Amino acid sequence: MSTLILVRHGQSQWNLENRFTGWWDVDLTEKGVSEATAAGELLKEKDVLPTSAFTSLQTRAIRTLHLALHAADRLWVPVTKDWHLNERHYGGLTGLDKQETRDKHGDEQVHIWRRSFDVPPPEMEPGHEYDMLGDPRYEGIDIPSTESLKLTIERVLPFWENAILPVLEDGETVIVSAHGNSLRALVKHLSGISDDDITGLEIPTGQPIIYEFAADADGELQPGEMRYLKDI
Amino acid sequence: MSTLILVRHGQSQWNLENRFTGWWDVDLTEKGVSEATAAGELLKEKDVLPTSAFTSLQTRAIRTLHLALHAADRLWVPVTKDWHLNERHYGGLTGLDKQETRDKHGDEQVHIWRRSFDVPPPEMEPGHEYDMLGDPRYEGIDIPSTESLKLTIERVLPFWENAILPVLEDGETVIVSAHGNSLRALVKHLSGISDDDITGLEIPTGQPIIYEFAADADGELQPGEMRYLKDI
Repeated sequence: MSTLILVRHGQSQWNLENRFTGWWDVDLTEKGVSEATAAGELLKEKDVLPTSAFTSLQTRAIRTLHLALHAADRLWVPVTKDWHLNERHYGGLTGLDKQETRDKHGDEQVHIWRRSFDVPPPEMEPGHEYDMLGDPRYEGIDIPSTESLKLTIERVLPFWENAILPVLEDGETVIVSAHGNSLRALVKHLSGISDDDITGLEIPTGQPIIYEFAADADGELQPGEMRYLKDI
Repeated sequence: MSTLILVRHGQSQWNLENRFTGWWDVDLTEKGVSEATAAGELLKEKDVLPTSAFTSLQTRAIRTLHLALHAADRLWVPVTKDWHLNERHYGGLTGLDKQETRDKHGDEQVHIWRRSFDVPPPEMEPGHEYDMLGDPRYEGIDIPSTESLKLTIERVLPFWENAILPVLEDGETVIVSAHGNSLRALVKHLSGISDDDITGLEIPTGQPIIYEFAADADGELQPGEMRYLKDI
């Protein structure tokens, strides 16, 4: 029996300001810090203790992981950080708040981007204010210029298969601290959610989601139902 | 050219109380948190930015690393945690404060333990209050029952050779967040300090130490002088 814990990072400064963040490296707010700590306290209280951890290359997810592990007395577990768990890249929308986006692109277009599975926002143009090109953490990585949810899923799932699943197959309790859309990718895959339905699924910040895994008749790990740890 | 940064963890609760800590997992005090953050701010100010990190399996060193990396905007670097960088195991002295140790063992014996290179304290007895046996982080590891500084060095140096040095050979800027005695082991090796002198060397908490490495005529990396980053 293995256990997967998914945690969406606590509130970030741009969550608070309602701006598209994507790959821009925004830090947690004080509320975000509290949410992350509370997530770790819940893990400890429910005795769901990680033995291995994965996160993105983005400060808000890494700090959420660290704060949660500290609260659960599990800072010592091995942590793998990888860009494949990064938030969806919002292209040219990065940095805009909801009103700016509507003013610039119109209500109808914004609705399409928010709800569509495979329509990416406009590409981020060269020299954009919130460009991560040249950041040393992405050395050797082809930073996307924009991503639909579909494109996000297409880079999250190979990492799931190649890096995370083998650790679960070893019987570990794995925590993944990541982002709204990289976690949607995992939940869609694990709970078999349709392309149409996944865009409407909101994953709350700092609220641990649990999947228990058990081997089927062929010895393949299969996930159970998605559950919130607070309800278990 | 590669750079090694050594940081001793910030003040812990038992540093403050003047108790032998060793392998017991004590957390940082508020002062320790500030020291760790200041260390990271200094790295950023001096533009000595880690690209890779190592630490022990002990909360006080891991948190010091995380706080310093956060302050230096480098939370995303890969981190290896390993018991070989743990503090010296103080055996039966673990948990005692200075006065208790003198009362129990006498001034002369305490002086020998504090100053000798190769005399270990008495072994930790089974069922000791501050025993780490059975802690899952040490699963599969033969936890020592006591260590002299000599024994500490004998487990730190192979890890240095096999795990840290190869990363420096790749040209990385490596930060090691560890403990008074595991760092003494490294400083003794890198600066060629004698067995007699190393026991008197005090490494200050939260104060980054820098070694620059350059290849010699045979292509082997050689360390320069030990320097405090604040003085560079």
